[in-house]
This record gives sequence, structure tokens and C-alpha cells, in this order.
Amino acid sequence: MDDATERSGARLSRRGGGGAARRAERTATRIEFARFITRNIPDLEILNAEAIEIIEANAEIVLEEIGVNFVENPEALRLWKDAGADVDGERVRIPRGLARQLCKTAPSQFTQHARNPERNVEIGGRNLVLAPVYGPPFVRDQDGGRRYATIGDFQKFVKLGQMSKWIHHSGGTVCEPTDVAVNKRHLDMLHAHMTLSDKPYMGSVTLPERAADSVEMSKILFGADFVDQNTVMTSLININSPLTFDGVMMGALEVYARAGQACIISPFIVGGAMAPVSVAGTLTQVLAEVMAGVAYSQLVRAGAPVIGGAFVTSIDMNSGAPTFGTPEAAQITLGAGQLMRRLGVPFRSAGSFCGSKLPDAQAAYETANTLNTGLLSGVNFMLHACGWLEGGLVSSFEKYVMDADQLGILHRLAKGIDISENGQAMDALREVGPGGHFLGSAHTQANFKEAFWRSSVLDYKPFETWEDEGARDTATLAAARVAKMLGEYQAPDLDVAKAEELNDYVARKKAAEPDSFLS
Amino acid sequence: MDDATERSGARLSRRGGGGAARRAERTATRIEFARFITRNIPDLEILNAEAIEIIEANAEIVLEEIGVNFVENPEALRLWKDAGADVDGERVRIPRGLARQLCKTAPSQFTQHARNPERNVEIGGRNLVLAPVYGPPFVRDQDGGRRYATIGDFQKFVKLGQMSKWIHHSGGTVCEPTDVAVNKRHLDMLHAHMTLSDKPYMGSVTLPERAADSVEMSKILFGADFVDQNTVMTSLININSPLTFDGVMMGALEVYARAGQACIISPFIVGGAMAPVSVAGTLTQVLAEVMAGVAYSQLVRAGAPVIGGAFVTSIDMNSGAPTFGTPEAAQITLGAGQLMRRLGVPFRSAGSFCGSKLPDAQAAYETANTLNTGLLSGVNFMLHACGWLEGGLVSSFEKYVMDADQLGILHRLAKGIDISENGQAMDALREVGPGGHFLGSAHTQANFKEAFWRSSVLDYKPFETWEDEGARDTATLAAARVAKMLGEYQAPDLDVAKAEELNDYVARKKAAEPDSFLS
Repeated sequence: MDDATERSGARLSRRGGGGAARRAERTATRIEFARFITRNIPDLEILNAEAIEIIEANAEIVLEEIGVNFVENPEALRLWKDAGADVDGERVRIPRGLARQLCKTAPSQFTQHARNPERNVEIGGRNLVLAPVYGPPFVRDQDGGRRYATIGDFQKFVKLGQMSKWIHHSGGTVCEPTDVAVNKRHLDMLHAHMTLSDKPYMGSVTLPERAADSVEMSKILFGADFVDQNTVMTSLININSPLTFDGVMMGALEVYARAGQACIISPFIVGGAMAPVSVAGTLTQVLAEVMAGVAYSQLVRAGAPVIGGAFVTSIDMNSGAPTFGTPEAAQITLGAGQLMRRLGVPFRSAGSFCGSKLPDAQAAYETANTLNTGLLSGVNFMLHACGWLEGGLVSSFEKYVMDADQLGILHRLAKGIDISENGQAMDALREVGPGGHFLGSAHTQANFKEAFWRSSVLDYKPFETWEDEGARDTATLAAARVAKMLGEYQAPDLDVAKAEELNDYVARKKAAEPDSFLS
Repeated sequence: MDDATERSGARLSRRGGGGAARRAERTATRIEFARFITRNIPDLEILNAEAIEIIEANAEIVLEEIGVNFVENPEALRLWKDAGADVDGERVRIPRGLARQLCKTAPSQFTQHARNPERNVEIGGRNLVLAPVYGPPFVRDQDGGRRYATIGDFQKFVKLGQMSKWIHHSGGTVCEPTDVAVNKRHLDMLHAHMTLSDKPYMGSVTLPERAADSVEMSKILFGADFVDQNTVMTSLININSPLTFDGVMMGALEVYARAGQACIISPFIVGGAMAPVSVAGTLTQVLAEVMAGVAYSQLVRAGAPVIGGAFVTSIDMNSGAPTFGTPEAAQITLGAGQLMRRLGVPFRSAGSFCGSKLPDAQAAYETANTLNTGLLSGVNFMLHACGWLEGGLVSSFEKYVMDADQLGILHRLAKGIDISENGQAMDALREVGPGGHFLGSAHTQANFKEAFWRSSVLDYKPFETWEDEGARDTATLAAARVAKMLGEYQAPDLDVAKAEELNDYVARKKAAEPDSFLS
């Protein structure tokens, strides 16, 4: 076992964007990226056989006796009725076993293609794909404080993602570009992901026609035939917990499923509000909701790639605020992983969750608790893996690079322990013996460069040096790293004709209707 | 499953220390404490059967072929020779299987008694006992910055420990009281633990006669007969890695083992310096060292209570600094847990480790990574569970309460998932149904108070409130909590005669020799 996968993609840029001097400088910058994680360590199975049996049985009772609502979606109701469900108004009651049976056509693993094939990701199985924060209307950085996000901020986050070694996926709404009309911002967001990054990305879900735009733009980028035959987007479909599937979100799901594009189908749950205050009760609801949603995706198109899972956190019963990094959230994440593996669909959960307003110790405790849980729960697709702040209201530039750095730990931890002859190091133990020192041993000399994971953000300096350099805290160190990464950013090559066609598509669609800042 | 164990000890103080008004105020303060953790969740077993077999076989080879040094300790060499080892100068080569065989008389679990029997802890089995930081020569707080520690600081840390709900153990050298002579400070430290706290504590190990003082003072506190028949101290015996046992530390071990008092026998390893740069190689060395040390304790007195384990971290090969919260440290901790369980001795590892100079995000990432690993590795005794800063050079007041708060998460997580009928919450799911809200449901009303763990330090307030209150970061919130806890501190009852006898013992021993600040 070695770091070959981590280094395999390290390469020099092939093309600069400016004059000769800039080109030379850029050529000197090494951009590293890591392959998605493939776990070589066990999952933590927190539910025993009895607990699994109870929760799975209860989820079937929920579907059969309580049912789920498919709102403003007559076509969905027809599909469910044809499949054998009991449809009463918008309420769909699903006979025991039917939803789980329908889920069987969903692939347990699929490839999401990137325009740079080296960045393709495998979603499912023992793999873990990391994507950045999604959805905040605000951004924060040390210089500018907290403010509404703009498309300029959005582009900076996409550039950071492209430059972040441990981030495998460019994500989706890395922040809401609030300075662009609501009915047009999906075009600018997709354009940024497609042109500023060559990692895989997510499509728009806010209306079915925006999902269709996402498919069309992907066809320009990849070619229409390729998109017809391959998955090039993974998009985020929220379930309205408890037990409700709204027509707009399902409309976007239908567009993607028919186009063979992947969706995450997962509830957004603040426990105590949208689900019971108990872990087992929440897991029951999550499983019922995911089974209904995944089953519906397979009714739309059998074999459509989907990801099940949950965004779940608990509530502070004093203030009503969502809380993060809590033991209940960890238990739900671990339990949901077991339930999704048994369901046979890739699992989405966890992220760089925190409630803190600043990228401080609270943010880091809560995030580290959640990232570690995510790795051990068997998450296959971790949205929000970096940059999340203030309960998801804020995308933080500094926290983005702080979290992205921590993700390197997950990569290394997941490799497991090397027990090759070199890993056993018996020659070193013999060479050094009692009272000796390993720094100079042949084994150390041969292995030290790759032996230990090393942070690119955190401070390892002697106290006096650190003090002389301004006694900087982590956020301040991270601010410097943000500036460095953006300064060294290099746009990935893009075929000129495709770039022009994408520009034309965006311009044409923007011109076709007036701006709306409402919806 | 509920929080009964967490609340069982909550009680009012029975005695104030000052005037009537102060007494009334103190009586109103509720001091909570939590019972030690008993895990109801699985351990994370990172080593597979093949890896275990290889590492255990290699450890035997290390003991048999390389051997260990017992330095300046002729009595130890005699004991080893009598036991069948090959003794050559100070080198002890231990035939395959002998050390593991000798370890069998060590108890797999034992009770450490506190002077308040409600605070007794069970060390071993599925239990986890949490003790604070040990050893730093400096302290840091927000007002005073970084400075040499004093006995005044030491006493404040002991008071914080007494007031910290999730800390089960008063610890030992919570900081080095550098204003007290080296040859006398153990007396003041023990006196503080014995009088300011009623939780269990650690004894002195810096010289055998200081260990003897620790036993004598414990006999005053508990009664001589009680100490003869019960374990009332757990003390920290470091192995000088690689593979070296020095006479002073072993001298202290001998005093404690003969008195039936417990010792932690564990190497202090910075991987790459005191052990090979590989995880498997380090685990091999750790196992060999612990087997030799535990076996020796059993040669001194068969049945003496001991804890095996490791303080292990990796090194930054660029700066030479020890690093914390790294994936390699996590792998070693998890692997060591498996090896110690197979050896049948309680396991010590993990803690609030970090390299950061400030209680900032770096400190929290590194600490959270380590605390989570500690829980899942099956640690039985976690020294340094709160307050560690700057690679162990600094005891931080703010980080003490920040970390101690996070330890509440470990308690809750370890309980596992409640699958009782109430936990299943099917009544709530039926009551609320699709599109409803759980906040007002009968199940929520009945359960919300105990449903979710809640921080006592972190910020859950609305953004505007938080901003109006000064936009405080975690360290600033923690500083306020330190002041509050010290303000509310209540000394536990202590028999007046015992208190006087302890004072006399300390005064007499201090008067018996001149101050030395050297050793």
C-alpha cells in the first residue's frame, strides 16, 4: 500500500492563459488531486441485528399504514397506482415489501463521468466521493465578513474546488449567487462548474426546466450521445420530511431519471421538528422516505442511478436552533449507512457541518465529529464535505480550505494499515534496538516522505517562529492559503468550440425571459 | 436506555464554606457528575486476523531476539533471570510466549476507589474513564497568555475537574507547579487532589520515595487498611522507547505494584523518532514494550493492577514537530486497542491532543479526531482527555472546559441506540403523518428534555443575538465558563482530622529537606 493513487494525477498544467511569463510561472505550479477514497477499513455497525429488524419492519408499517404524499403530481400517483400502491387523493400507501422490491433495479454503484476522465468518480460500494458545501445564501471571509453571496464568490469557490487535492467533485450550489436573477442563476452556476473545473458536478433542481437546461448544457460539454449513455450529473433532490414529495422536486427527479442522470434522494431532517426526537424513530422515517423516493425513481425509469441517504441533525430544544456534530446525529448517520447498504443503494450523508458563526474551535469540533462519523458510516457521497458554516447559512472561504485539508486525513485513514514487509519494519527495529533513535535508520530514510499525512494549512512551527510570524490562528492561516490557491489557480483546458457553444446557450436562455428575483 | 446514570449523582452541596449568604447561594448550585462510560457500541477493529497474527508474532521476535533494557536496576534483572529470561548486562531477552504468559495474572478490570465512593471508577472491560491533561510546564488563558504554571494554576485546574460533569478522574500533574521546589511539589499536588476534589487521582512517579509519599498520604485519606486492600491510585509509568525501562520509573512502579496500587505502563512515542515510521512497526514495538512492562509488574507482584497502552503520535518530517489528530495516530490507537484486549489488560490511549498554540480550529480538529478515535478504539483510561494544548507544553484553561464539554458527546454516543417502544416512536410517526410537524407531538413533549445532548459551552444563539453579545468565538465563550465554574466551585466535605493530618504530613516532609529546583 502506498500513496500512488494520491500522486497519480499530479501533473503540470499543459496550457497557460496569458503571456509567456505567466505561462512559465503557471507551468511551475503543481496541481495535485486525489482519487476518490476506496475504503480498506471496516464500517462501524452501530445497529445490531435486532435493531435492524425492528427499524426495517417499522419502515414498512409507515409506508403501508401511514403512507407518503406525492403533492401536485398526478403522473406520480398514476405510476404508483399501476405499481400496486393504494392511492387516496395525494396519499400513497405502499404495500409491505413493494418499495424495497422496486429499489432493486437501482444500481448499487455507478460511474459519474467528469469531462476530464481522470476525475471520474465511482459512487457506491466501498467508495467515498467528497463534494463541497451546497446552498448557503451568505459567504464569509476574514477580510469581508459575512455578506450575501455573488456569482463572483461562486466562481472563487469553484476555483478552490479545482485546486483542492482532496475534493473529488465540483459540487453544485457552492453558494447562492444572489446577484443573479433566480430564474437565470442556474445557467451561470453550471457554466462556472463546466468551464472553471474539470471535476464532476451537480445539476439544477429548482424547476424541471432548469434540470432540462442542465442536461442540455451537459450535452454541449460531453456530446449528446455520451450524455444519453452515461451519468455526468448527480443532483440533489430533497424529500420534504415528514413523508412528503413535492411536485417541483419530483419534476426535476423525473427529468434526470429519464435522462439516466443520477439524483441524491434524501430527506433534510432537523430531528425533533421534521422527525421524532428519537434516533430509532428518525431512522425509521429516513428509511421509509428513501425507500419511497428511490422506488419512485425506478418507476420513472428502472435502472436510473440514485443515491439514498439523509441530511440529519438534531435541534437545540432551548433555542430551536439546529445543532451539529452531536452524538444523536452521529448515531443516525451510522445507522442510516447500515440501512442503505442493506437496501443496496449508494449512501449520502455527513459533511463539514457546524452551527458556529466563525471558523473557530466550535466549527472544527462539530465538523471533525461529523467527518469522522461519515467515513465510518460508509458514506459513498459526502456533500458539504468542506466550507459549511453557521448551520448552512454561510459558505466560508477559510473553512473551505481548512475542511478540505482535513479530508486528507480521511483518505489516509481509509487505506488501512500496511502490513507488507516494509510496513512491518522489523529491519528498523533490529537496526535501532533499545535506546536508539529511528530518525537516521535506513527504513526511516526510505519511507519518511510518504510515511505520515501532513496538513497544508495547520501550524507545525516552533512556538517562537509562530509568535514572530504574528501568532496566527487557524482561520488566519487559512485566509492566506485561500489567497495562495486562488493566485495559483489554472483553468483546465476546454475546447474552444464547446466553450463558445456554452456561452451562446447561456446568453440565449438568459435573453429569452425577463429577470425574476422571486423564483 | 435513558440518562439516569448521568443524573444519578446530581445533588446539592451539603456544606458551604463561608457566611450564611454564601452558603445559601452555594446550596442553590447544582453540581452534576457523570458515571464513567460503559460502552454499548462496538469497537472499530482496524486490524484483520492476518495483521494481528503478524504483529503479535513480530512482537515476540522483538522480545526474544532484540530484547529490552532494564537500566540501573539489578533487582529487575534478577527477577527476569529467575523467570527464565536471557539476561546479558542490562539487556533482557524474553523467550517467546513468556511475557504474554506473565501478563495473565494482571486483572482485566479493577476498581479505583475515590474518597467519595460515588466517584469510584471501574477500569477495564467495556468502560471508559476520563482524566484531564498531565504534565505541561506552561498554562495559557485568554487574560494571562502563556506563562509558567504555578501551584495556584494547579489548584484551579483541580477545581475545574471537580466541577466538570464529564470528567471522572482528578488526574495527576494537571500542570507542573514550577513555583514549588521539584523535590516537594508532589506533596502539594497530591494535597490539592485530596482536598479540593473527591474524584480519584494519580500518584507521583518522579522518584520511588515520592511514590512512597503518595501511598502514605493515601493511607491518611483512606485509612491504611483500606489502601492495603484496595486500589486508590493509578499512576503513570512511561517506557523510554525504544525498548528501555529506566530505574527511576521502574522504582516507582515497584513501590506501587507492591502496594497493590495501579500503574499505566505505556510508551511515549513520537513515531519516526522513538519508533519506526510505519504503523505496523510502531504497533509491534508498542506491544513488545507493554508486554515486557506488564510482565515485569507481575514479577514484582502477581495480580498488581496495571493498564497497558500507548501515547503515540507522528512527527512532521519537515519541522520535526510532533503532530496530532493524524490518521497514523488514529490507526495506531485503534490497532493498539485490539492488541491490548487480546492481551487482557485495560487499555490507555488517546486524549485531547493537538499541536496548536491556541484553542482554535486546529486545536479542535486535532482533538476531536483523537477523542472520537479513543472512544472507538476501546480505550479504558483516557489520560489528557481535556485541556491539552501546544503538543503538551501547555495546559489551557479555556480548552479544558471546551474539551470537557465535548466529552459529553462520547458519553451519549457510547450508550448506543434506544430501540425500546418509546425509542421507536411509532406513535409519533402515526400522530404527525405526512407534512406535519413533530415539535408539538405528545412523544416530543414527553422526551425532549433528555432527547438530545446539549453543549454547555458552544454557541446555539441566533446570529443577531450572537452579534449583539460581542460576536464571541469559542475560546471567549470558554473563558466565561471557566470563570463561572471557578466561581461556583464548592470544596467537597473532608473530615477535619484527616485534613489536619494531611497538612501535617506535607509540612513535615517539606521541612525535612532543603528545596531543590533541579530534580
